[in-house]
Amino acid sequence: MYNYQTLFDFTKNLFIKTGCSPQDATVVADVLMAAELRGIESHGLLRIADYYNLWKNKRINVTPDIRVVHETPSTAVVDGDSSLGMITGKRAMLLAIEKAKAVGTGWVSVRNSNHFGIAGYYAMMALEHDMIGITMTNANPLVAPTFSIDRMLGTNPIAVAVPAGKQPPYVADFATTPIARGKLDLMHKKGKVAPLGYVQDKDGNPSTDPNILTQGGAIVPLGGDYEHGSHKGYCLGSIVDIFSAVLSGAGYGPWVPPSVAYLPVKENPDVKGTGHFFGAMRIDAFRPASEFKDIMDKWILTFRNSKPDKQHEKVLIPGDPEREMEKIRMKEGIPVMPVVIEKINQIAEELGLEKI
Amino acid sequence: MYNYQTLFDFTKNLFIKTGCSPQDATVVADVLMAAELRGIESHGLLRIADYYNLWKNKRINVTPDIRVVHETPSTAVVDGDSSLGMITGKRAMLLAIEKAKAVGTGWVSVRNSNHFGIAGYYAMMALEHDMIGITMTNANPLVAPTFSIDRMLGTNPIAVAVPAGKQPPYVADFATTPIARGKLDLMHKKGKVAPLGYVQDKDGNPSTDPNILTQGGAIVPLGGDYEHGSHKGYCLGSIVDIFSAVLSGAGYGPWVPPSVAYLPVKENPDVKGTGHFFGAMRIDAFRPASEFKDIMDKWILTFRNSKPDKQHEKVLIPGDPEREMEKIRMKEGIPVMPVVIEKINQIAEELGLEKI
Repeated sequence: MYNYQTLFDFTKNLFIKTGCSPQDATVVADVLMAAELRGIESHGLLRIADYYNLWKNKRINVTPDIRVVHETPSTAVVDGDSSLGMITGKRAMLLAIEKAKAVGTGWVSVRNSNHFGIAGYYAMMALEHDMIGITMTNANPLVAPTFSIDRMLGTNPIAVAVPAGKQPPYVADFATTPIARGKLDLMHKKGKVAPLGYVQDKDGNPSTDPNILTQGGAIVPLGGDYEHGSHKGYCLGSIVDIFSAVLSGAGYGPWVPPSVAYLPVKENPDVKGTGHFFGAMRIDAFRPASEFKDIMDKWILTFRNSKPDKQHEKVLIPGDPEREMEKIRMKEGIPVMPVVIEKINQIAEELGLEKI
Repeated sequence: MYNYQTLFDFTKNLFIKTGCSPQDATVVADVLMAAELRGIESHGLLRIADYYNLWKNKRINVTPDIRVVHETPSTAVVDGDSSLGMITGKRAMLLAIEKAKAVGTGWVSVRNSNHFGIAGYYAMMALEHDMIGITMTNANPLVAPTFSIDRMLGTNPIAVAVPAGKQPPYVADFATTPIARGKLDLMHKKGKVAPLGYVQDKDGNPSTDPNILTQGGAIVPLGGDYEHGSHKGYCLGSIVDIFSAVLSGAGYGPWVPPSVAYLPVKENPDVKGTGHFFGAMRIDAFRPASEFKDIMDKWILTFRNSKPDKQHEKVLIPGDPEREMEKIRMKEGIPVMPVVIEKINQIAEELGLEKI
C-alpha cells in the first residue's frame, strides 16, 4: 500500500523533470492520482510510462502554447499544442465554466491534445460552481462500427457530473463500449476467456479471446450485437468522436493518434492530435439552484431506495463506488501493481529522481 | 398502401376537431407523419388513439398557454401547460435555435409536456440552420436500473443530428435500452420469445417472455446485464431523465406520467408532466461552417467505406435506413396496420370526420 501524498509528490516531480512547469506537473499528478483513488487504475500511474515514451519521441510537448482559436459567448475551440491531455483538458474545462458563468452554458471542443486520464475529473470540476459538467474524448481506434470489421472508433467515454444538495453528487463516467481495453489485457494475462459480447475476430465473428485485438479483432460497441442495440453504442461512440474532433479539427475515427509511442501516428493533413469536448451548464440558468438541488436529492434518494434484486444489497447511484473507494484509499493507502512501480522507478532512475 | 398527403390531411383534421388550432394540428400531423415515413410506426399514427384518449380524459390541453418560465442568453425552461408534446417540443427547439443564433448554443429544458413523437424530428430542425441538434425526453417508467427490480426509467431516447456538406446529414435517434416496448408487444402478439438481454422478470432474473412487463417485469438498460455494461445504459437513461426533468421541474423517474389514459397519473406536488431537453449548437460557433461540413463529409465517407463483415453489404451511417425508407414511402405509399386504420376511423366517426 502506498500513501497518497507520496505517490502524488513522486508523480509531480517526475513530470517536472521532463520539463513541465510545477503548475502543469501538479495538474497531471492530480488527474492521475484521482484515477488511483477512485479505483480506475487503468487511467492512473500505469499511464506514466506511455506519456514518458511519447515525450521522449517528441509527441508530447511539455512547454505548450495552448490557444483559443475560435470563440463565441458560449463556445470555443482550443488548440492544445500537443500538450499532455490534462493540461489542455483542465484549461478547456475552466473556459467552459467561465462561459457558463457569463451566458448560462459553455462548450469547448479541443484539438491537438493527448490522452487526458479520466473524463470524470473534468466533469466534476463543474460541481463546486453549482454547474453540471460534461466531458467526452475520442481515443485511438479499437472499436468496429455495427456490421463492420474495421477498427474505426475509440472506447470514447462520456462523463456527466450533476450537483446535489445534501446528497453526494451524481457522477457518471463510462466508455461507450461493454469493456475497456485494459480489462481485456488483464484477462489475457490471467489466462481467462472473455465473455461473449466484448470482442469480435478479424472477420466480425463473436470471439471469447481477450487477445483478439492483436490478431485483427475489434471491441464491439455498447450493446454487443445488432440484436441487442450495438448500433446505439455505435451512435454514442460516433457522437463523441464528432463533438471532440469534427467540431475542433482533431484526428477523428481512424486518425486519432495512438496514446502509446510504439505505434506510429497516421499522417492526415486535415487533422491534429486527440480531441476532447467539455460542457458546463449553470443549474441556476434553468431554475434556482436550491430548488434544483432539493429535487436532485430526491431523485438520488428515489433511485437509491429502489428495490434491489436478490443478488444485491442496494441499488447504486452513478459515482457511488468510486466515491467509496476514494474514502478507503485516502485512509488505508493505494495498492499499486508491482509491475507499475517497477516501470516508474526505472523512469525515475533515467531522470535522476529518487525511487519510490 | 396509403398516400402521404391523405394521411397527413386526415391527421391534421382530426386534431383540429379536438380543438387544436390549424397551426398546432399541422405540427402534430407533421411529427407523426415523419415517424411513418421514416419507418418508426411505433411513434406514428398508432399513437393517435392514445393522445385522443388522454384529451378525452382532460390530460392533454389543446389550447395551451406555453410559457418561458426562466431564461439566460443560452438557456431556458419552458412550461408546456399540458399540451400535446409536439407543440411544446417544436416551440422549445425553435427557442434553442434562436439562442444559438445569438450566443453560439441554446439549451431548453421542458416541463408539463406530453409524449412528443420521435426525438429525431426536433434534432433535425437544427440542420437547416447549420446547427447540430440534440433532443432527449423522459418517458413513463418501464426500465429497471442495474441491480434493481423496480421500474424507474423510461426508454429515454437521445437524438443527435449533425449537418454535412455534399453527404446527407448524420442523424442518430435511439432509445437507451436494447429494445422498445412496442417491439416487445409485437413479439408477444406473434407468439415469439424474446432474446435474452431485453427484459427481466419481477425478481430480476433474465427472461425471454415478451409479455413479462404485465407481470411485474422490466426492460433492462442498454448493455443488458452488468457484465456487458448495463450500468452504462442506466447512466444514459438517468442523464436523459435529469436533463429533461430535474432541470425543468417535470416528473422524473417513477413520476413521469403514463402516455396512455388507462393508467393513472401518480400524484407528486413537486413535479409537472413529461420532460424534454433540446439543444442547438451553431457549427460556425466552433469553426467556419464550410470547413466543418467538408470534414463531416470525410467523416461520413470514411465510416461508410469501412469494411463490412460477411453478412452485410455495407456499413451504415446513423440516419441512413430512415432516410432511405422515407424516399420509398414518399413514392410508393405508407403501409399502415389494419388495426391502426380501424382505431383512427373509429375516432373519426366519433368526431364526425370522414373516414380514411
